[in-house]
Amino acid sequence: MRIDIISAAPNLLESPFNHSIIKRAQQSGIAKIVIHDLREYGLGKYKQIDDTQFGGGAGMVLMMEPIVNCIKKLQSERSYDELIYMTPDAKVLNQSTANSLSIKENLLILTGHYKGVDQRIRDKYITKEISIGDYVITGGELAAAVLVDAVIRLIPGAIGDEQSALTDSFQDNLLSPPIYTRPAEFEGMKVPEILLSGNFPKIDDWRMEKAFERTKSIRPDLLKDE
Amino acid sequence: MRIDIISAAPNLLESPFNHSIIKRAQQSGIAKIVIHDLREYGLGKYKQIDDTQFGGGAGMVLMMEPIVNCIKKLQSERSYDELIYMTPDAKVLNQSTANSLSIKENLLILTGHYKGVDQRIRDKYITKEISIGDYVITGGELAAAVLVDAVIRLIPGAIGDEQSALTDSFQDNLLSPPIYTRPAEFEGMKVPEILLSGNFPKIDDWRMEKAFERTKSIRPDLLKDE
Repeated sequence: MRIDIISAAPNLLESPFNHSIIKRAQQSGIAKIVIHDLREYGLGKYKQIDDTQFGGGAGMVLMMEPIVNCIKKLQSERSYDELIYMTPDAKVLNQSTANSLSIKENLLILTGHYKGVDQRIRDKYITKEISIGDYVITGGELAAAVLVDAVIRLIPGAIGDEQSALTDSFQDNLLSPPIYTRPAEFEGMKVPEILLSGNFPKIDDWRMEKAFERTKSIRPDLLKDE
Repeated sequence: MRIDIISAAPNLLESPFNHSIIKRAQQSGIAKIVIHDLREYGLGKYKQIDDTQFGGGAGMVLMMEPIVNCIKKLQSERSYDELIYMTPDAKVLNQSTANSLSIKENLLILTGHYKGVDQRIRDKYITKEISIGDYVITGGELAAAVLVDAVIRLIPGAIGDEQSALTDSFQDNLLSPPIYTRPAEFEGMKVPEILLSGNFPKIDDWRMEKAFERTKSIRPDLLKDE
């Protein structure tokens, strides 16, 4: 998979993409992530990329032309399965969206910054708008990093132990059961005895029960979807 | 505000916290963010911080003791309003949670990594568990960066133009209206005429109408909460 990201603040993306799983996925050739600095497509001597809103109001808006020029250049090099815009006013990312994106070939992600992008870009070029949640953050860069992490880790081989991704929260519409590691007792708090029993079928039952209990208590809405 | 973050992969947090709004907030003294490398509290010669799950299963679990030692050290230096654990099996962050955290004095954030932390840490030490959305990412670091960004930008003075934060999506349970900037026509696509009219009361009406239409079409669930 190849992911191109267009950003007005590319240095925000440095460390999330130079460490951990995303770095490993890039090194092993599973994924290639290329970040494009929108400023390089800026207009005039000052490489302008944003301007004030038509109709008045606070906050700068990313202009169409630099973005269109960057998109067209990239589209001339390969075709993209989706042209994604990260924005809080969109459908919210969930595990099933991450699953479906993880089997794509080429993704292009546009990240908003400041107040966002000119609406005409969204109307004409964007094929999919994604929010990471019902809150506002300064720019789309962190949102893009979250999306890329969620997607990349689902590609076979990206994380050391594939079984681990399959038993994560949400893959079966349930939250994870509680987990414990050594020592069996710490500050008077003991690990549930069943986990020390070696009776694996019973452990599986216990975990399923706990996952269900936790989901029912914290996120009953997840159970209603079934 | 002071935010302490405990992490097993602190280098993931470098660039989000060294650029943009969070850097500015730190420089202007509005917020101080301190990252603590869990590995420094690791056990034995190899500074161990994780171990396999009791009861079997893939994925490593962060051990209690290093985390408890780090928490106790920090708590001996100041008292915290909340001890937050970032995890997908929790209530999902929304703008109102971000608002309420933005008026706190001291926050301590624990980020999971690998499969998560020993449940006993959550039972005994954590006062608030927060998920950034219904999807799984590799570690809690990106989630913590998202939370910190969402919270810090709400502190008066953190972003250049406070008005801009107040007109963001979600602050009034509506998505943002569409925004446009120069040029008024590009590739045959024109800005809505009303925005060029200079009639600001009418522009306000138009924006409210569009915000409502967009919310109704993309996120009708937000309107039901009212």
